[in-house]
Amino acid sequence: MPASRNKPAARGGIDLGGTKIEAIVVDAENTVLGTARRPTPTTGGPPDVAAQLAAAVRDAAHAAGLETAQLSGVGVGSPGIVDEAGGTVASAGNLPGWGGTFELGPGLSKDLGTPVFVSNDVRVATNAEYRLGAGKQYKSLIGVFWGTGIGGGLILNGKPWLGRGGAGEIGHTVVKLGGRRCPCGRRGCVEAYAGRAAMEAQARKRHRKGEKTILLKLMKEHGRTRMTSAIWERALKQEDKLATDLIDEAVEALGAGIASAINLLDLEAVIIGGGLGVRFGQRFTERIARAMHPHLFNDHRPPDVRLAALGDLGGALGASLLARDKRRLNTR
Amino acid sequence: MPASRNKPAARGGIDLGGTKIEAIVVDAENTVLGTARRPTPTTGGPPDVAAQLAAAVRDAAHAAGLETAQLSGVGVGSPGIVDEAGGTVASAGNLPGWGGTFELGPGLSKDLGTPVFVSNDVRVATNAEYRLGAGKQYKSLIGVFWGTGIGGGLILNGKPWLGRGGAGEIGHTVVKLGGRRCPCGRRGCVEAYAGRAAMEAQARKRHRKGEKTILLKLMKEHGRTRMTSAIWERALKQEDKLATDLIDEAVEALGAGIASAINLLDLEAVIIGGGLGVRFGQRFTERIARAMHPHLFNDHRPPDVRLAALGDLGGALGASLLARDKRRLNTR
Repeated sequence: MPASRNKPAARGGIDLGGTKIEAIVVDAENTVLGTARRPTPTTGGPPDVAAQLAAAVRDAAHAAGLETAQLSGVGVGSPGIVDEAGGTVASAGNLPGWGGTFELGPGLSKDLGTPVFVSNDVRVATNAEYRLGAGKQYKSLIGVFWGTGIGGGLILNGKPWLGRGGAGEIGHTVVKLGGRRCPCGRRGCVEAYAGRAAMEAQARKRHRKGEKTILLKLMKEHGRTRMTSAIWERALKQEDKLATDLIDEAVEALGAGIASAINLLDLEAVIIGGGLGVRFGQRFTERIARAMHPHLFNDHRPPDVRLAALGDLGGALGASLLARDKRRLNTR
Repeated sequence: MPASRNKPAARGGIDLGGTKIEAIVVDAENTVLGTARRPTPTTGGPPDVAAQLAAAVRDAAHAAGLETAQLSGVGVGSPGIVDEAGGTVASAGNLPGWGGTFELGPGLSKDLGTPVFVSNDVRVATNAEYRLGAGKQYKSLIGVFWGTGIGGGLILNGKPWLGRGGAGEIGHTVVKLGGRRCPCGRRGCVEAYAGRAAMEAQARKRHRKGEKTILLKLMKEHGRTRMTSAIWERALKQEDKLATDLIDEAVEALGAGIASAINLLDLEAVIIGGGLGVRFGQRFTERIARAMHPHLFNDHRPPDVRLAALGDLGGALGASLLARDKRRLNTR
């Protein structure tokens, strides 16, 4: 690639979420040259989603004064089961008609005229925090993304740890044998107590059984159909008992699950991100650290527990890093 | 080291256990040339233990027709907190007077006239299974040593994973928030249900409260002061209800804890070793695999679960490998 010797090429990154597509174009120093955002299609199927991804990164490139073919590569952080080698995405339940497997990478690559690399959204966000965010000073860490579900991404000795492709499921650490039913169908997982979807289901169930809560009233007032991070935050501020109890249990479950991961891996740091994690901020990051402590085997040397630093652009930034890393690998 | 080019030097390995010291000398192909065994001192302090380690490996060397100074190195697998760089061992609770830190490696090295490398006993045994035993065909695995406590050793992508030095504590994965008290002082750990010491404490407690069991009678009959693996096995064969219940709970806790580790790391294989693991054998290895299954997030692709293959010599063989690996590292 002699071109890259003359000018360090710009790269693209796309964060494919359940509600929105965030695209960026960055230069070699990860400075953002252009951004674009589109809603994720709610109907149609994978080709329709792919078309919106292409459009979003094209917009971001134009904002940077570039065509996508001038980008050295584009990375995509996607939900679902990602096969990085083939660029395929399977079983992305939150995306329309994406129950099966779709060749996202190869199709996009042809469309955009530049190599496209696909990876798991949580891993990509973890990598972004590791390289550019709250994890910069560490070599080994776990990113815990506290949102609708609980995602986890591992960096071990400077490299993402993927296992056989499915690593990072800290949300499905069993913290209570025979405990609460998890959206995954199993019992007693961290996510059964701490995932936003599971907490909402639990709140609705207890409300039906007669427990008082302002959670549902707040949803109606703010025109929400789901108990978003903001709704939970408001309920906590108003000292709603049910919300407080459920969040207390969530923090306890997160503490036990993350401590178990630290007992197993003895990592330097834990980065707390995700919709709820970022919304609740530093105070809750500290609460999680305190909830971990009683379960840490080496409690004289706990890991650093830090709040994610990159906010909304973390996913797209991480995806753009993917493009750089994979490119290097292929041209070596 | 020109000598090693002429003849591949023999190496020593020592497994330092709470009751016995097992020493071996092997050639470059890991063929055992000599072995020796000594009881671990029950009185005195670290220097007395070190003297017995030196005597044991000297005996093993003599059995192989060698002096220890002719060995290319000696590895030691030790309990307690091991600092590999300094060769120190701290807080080895099962060894006499070993509450503090002792420079085991440097002292032994001087005594034996060859470099001595110290590592954690569980890690060393895991490495042995990985290189020479049940884990040979895998690149990433966890060794779970089911004995007095529950130890764990990780091999990730062909290398031992140590974290900041304290990795592998799968015995202290929290499987039941607010659950049974663990010998470590915490609650709900895998070891609280599955460790032999914890099971014995629980059996004695329930017996005192009036539950019937033949466990204590069996101990007396066989002249044991502790509920050894063999005692548990006999009680199970005679369908003792309390023993059966406790072992069922142990298997359930192991299943949940190991499944959580797999959900996090997505490893290829789990190797079950340790006093109880090896004693109970293949049938229980399969029971643990079945107990894991309900908790596996990627349950369509469970890891292989295999019984440790090296038996009693695993620890010493693993220690001898340590000597080879560290030697290579230093002479590169």
